[in-house]
Amino acid sequence: MASAICVVCSVYLKAYVRAADGYGRMRGTPTCTLLHLGAGLGNGIANLHNARRASTAVVNLVGDHAGYHVHYDAPLTSNIKDIARGVSAWIRSSTTAEGMGQDARDAVAASLAANPESTGNVATLIIPADCAWGDAHAPSGVVIDKHWAPMTQDGVTESVQALRSADAILLLDGNGLTAAAINQAGRIAKVTGCRVYATTFPARSESGPGLYPVQRMPYFPEDVEAVLASAKSLILAGAKEPVSFFAYRGKPSNLVPLGCEVVRLAHKHQDVGADLARVANMLDAPAEPDVVGIDGRPSPPSGPLNTAAVGQALAALIPENSIVSTDSGGGGAAFPILHQAVRHSFLTITRGSIGQGGPVAVGAAVACPDRPVFALLGDGGALYTNQFLWTAAREKLNIVCVVYSNRTYSILDTEYRRLGVNTVGEIAASRFSLTDPDIDWVSLAKGYGADAVQVATGEALVAALEQGMAAQGPFLIEVLVSGRA
Amino acid sequence: MASAICVVCSVYLKAYVRAADGYGRMRGTPTCTLLHLGAGLGNGIANLHNARRASTAVVNLVGDHAGYHVHYDAPLTSNIKDIARGVSAWIRSSTTAEGMGQDARDAVAASLAANPESTGNVATLIIPADCAWGDAHAPSGVVIDKHWAPMTQDGVTESVQALRSADAILLLDGNGLTAAAINQAGRIAKVTGCRVYATTFPARSESGPGLYPVQRMPYFPEDVEAVLASAKSLILAGAKEPVSFFAYRGKPSNLVPLGCEVVRLAHKHQDVGADLARVANMLDAPAEPDVVGIDGRPSPPSGPLNTAAVGQALAALIPENSIVSTDSGGGGAAFPILHQAVRHSFLTITRGSIGQGGPVAVGAAVACPDRPVFALLGDGGALYTNQFLWTAAREKLNIVCVVYSNRTYSILDTEYRRLGVNTVGEIAASRFSLTDPDIDWVSLAKGYGADAVQVATGEALVAALEQGMAAQGPFLIEVLVSGRA
Repeated sequence: MASAICVVCSVYLKAYVRAADGYGRMRGTPTCTLLHLGAGLGNGIANLHNARRASTAVVNLVGDHAGYHVHYDAPLTSNIKDIARGVSAWIRSSTTAEGMGQDARDAVAASLAANPESTGNVATLIIPADCAWGDAHAPSGVVIDKHWAPMTQDGVTESVQALRSADAILLLDGNGLTAAAINQAGRIAKVTGCRVYATTFPARSESGPGLYPVQRMPYFPEDVEAVLASAKSLILAGAKEPVSFFAYRGKPSNLVPLGCEVVRLAHKHQDVGADLARVANMLDAPAEPDVVGIDGRPSPPSGPLNTAAVGQALAALIPENSIVSTDSGGGGAAFPILHQAVRHSFLTITRGSIGQGGPVAVGAAVACPDRPVFALLGDGGALYTNQFLWTAAREKLNIVCVVYSNRTYSILDTEYRRLGVNTVGEIAASRFSLTDPDIDWVSLAKGYGADAVQVATGEALVAALEQGMAAQGPFLIEVLVSGRA
Repeated sequence: MASAICVVCSVYLKAYVRAADGYGRMRGTPTCTLLHLGAGLGNGIANLHNARRASTAVVNLVGDHAGYHVHYDAPLTSNIKDIARGVSAWIRSSTTAEGMGQDARDAVAASLAANPESTGNVATLIIPADCAWGDAHAPSGVVIDKHWAPMTQDGVTESVQALRSADAILLLDGNGLTAAAINQAGRIAKVTGCRVYATTFPARSESGPGLYPVQRMPYFPEDVEAVLASAKSLILAGAKEPVSFFAYRGKPSNLVPLGCEVVRLAHKHQDVGADLARVANMLDAPAEPDVVGIDGRPSPPSGPLNTAAVGQALAALIPENSIVSTDSGGGGAAFPILHQAVRHSFLTITRGSIGQGGPVAVGAAVACPDRPVFALLGDGGALYTNQFLWTAAREKLNIVCVVYSNRTYSILDTEYRRLGVNTVGEIAASRFSLTDPDIDWVSLAKGYGADAVQVATGEALVAALEQGMAAQGPFLIEVLVSGRA
């Protein structure tokens, strides 16, 4: 931070900030972004929105005009605090070069605070140019750790009582989705018969052989209601109460059924695994849960491809210890089969701002250079941020990027019909279509210096995955898919 | 607006909002955007920032969760007003379906208000889903016109007095850059010998044969100071006082020299041309100014290309009545030669948020389907928003896109050195470079369904421009350039 010269513009920023989120999710340490005035910050908003829900510790540095220059309303002037407020847990604008060391220390501390999920952990430090020009001082003070103290015995006792009754669901998120926490939840399931779910879009979850098989809460509210229908208690282990992603006419926002008791065991930042262990021990659970076996690999698919067959190919082939990054759609649909097949870390879209899957993969690959990384992307979402491919090529990151090319922005069609519009007109339909002309993902990838192929069959996909996994640097596979079934 | 169903996500939004700005600049009517919650709005911020300075009338509709759903903090929830505040002159969130008609009317009126340039004309109307689901009523009330009343005689008299003294500069912007206003300024120049300048980055200016040759104020503050050094008076005709784009140590922010009297003739929204005519008449100016002749076309260039040679090729070839859209850099450098050669409308970056040149060209082409459109883009800026090429291909817009491929993000290198850092380290230098791997613009364009060629000589550029102008739909020319000279 000392004497930082803050002129770096936010090139390809949409990719850049999401990459920081991916890095932070894998490392668990604060991750730093450097944006340029309000316009550069604006380019990062959609991504900071996801990072906020992921509770990724982001020290978000935003360069500003020199303090004395702001009131002249030069072209790039804007009210940076206004724009930052919507995504930041903490905002400060430095006022002197001497104070910047302390400001930086406070920003790091704020990024590590145990904030609620709705607030997140983005600490925005605005740096006027005249502060950046001067000499800074070393910061003082110790940065606080982000783990809260373990819960009091109250949450544990209450959870134990709830779990002893019939039809309990244990809902995991945050620190409840580490390998250790998952297996503590599995111990509880073994002794009580409770069901164990992760939230719909966790920032990071571990799964695969050797771990208890945690299911994922579905996306659509009626599916969540079906999961919860018979539950008499819901124990929140790092999670919040499930709510509908969107509101729908006649559907409730909070999806917890009447008569289902909600018990909070721990917040996501806390040592959820330790609290789960305490609960398991009080229940006299066996030392080990029932875990996914090591023989869950399917055979590779053949013939024409749909979303399920792509998941099958991935489950057949991806290496142990991979990192999988998705927006949602096909990538999300691959989760259950991957989950049975191979040990991996899975990174999701957290707060719904699409276009994150590729850039988050970039950050994860930088954070974990020894782990294979797979970005599973819908074509609609991937178009937001396809610039990540150049960064991946430049940094020679081993990312296999699978684009589910169904040439539609199908979530729009889906949500449109869910509003009761069953006759979709020609103009509306054209807004959901990615044809006329088709996007040529192979050409796009090569434009950014990444090698790429297009495939339409299981055999070709398997060959492409093998080629991609052997390649140095990013490799894109455009998979022509025609449906989910 | 009635019964609008607001589920359209903001696909390729960075391009989308900028396109609205281009449309509004060419049509002069309100232009409407439809964004999806805070994340979608975030993707549009950088572009609304430019639209604000352009004073483009934007009715910025932002879909939100149903009112009753917001406090559940579902994933896409954010404080939309916070994010919108930094770029909006007016913000309202609808509260009932019945009130939406009136809300829409008020938003249109707000977008047409004569706001100061620092405030702009973006009217953000937030539409909760439960309002969108209901039946709306027709709006009441008449939308106000955006032209203010002409200035009082005071500004005119003061301007006449200032212009009668030696060394006056007439600075034009906004409605001062229509063809009619420019030639009124030319009448004044003819009778007084004053110099006439446009601001550095006007939203739209007309130039070419038949018009008085207005120069553009330079970008760097020392160059602006040189222009203003001898001026005894500065008459603002739709413009603000010139300020430095960035602050630099030891340089003033306001670039008007001591002893130079500043006179405001008219604000940018006013009928600047009418006020200029009044001044010209009081000065007994001749009826016609000295205008650019019709024989200003240079011969086409040959051999290796630099920025100047690209401008020469364009000036040799582009059709009458073209629209030229740029970020800055090479496109901006082409202005003086184009200005002498061919009648055209020129659209600039207004408020410094790069990546606008291509998308603004899209909006201009939609607004003016009978006019040829040229997007002159630096490779660094064009990478922000290259998705515009797909929209242009889909809508079959006749845009010839010239990418100045010098494979550097050279404004960063320039500004870095201006801070006094003359030894640029390897890491810093790599941040300014667009090589390793090179971006292949031809491949990128083809990925989006746009035809494209790469050229390295004047002969090839001329052939490519002829091919592009004859093509149906967009055509991209990657020009390998090695410098400005």
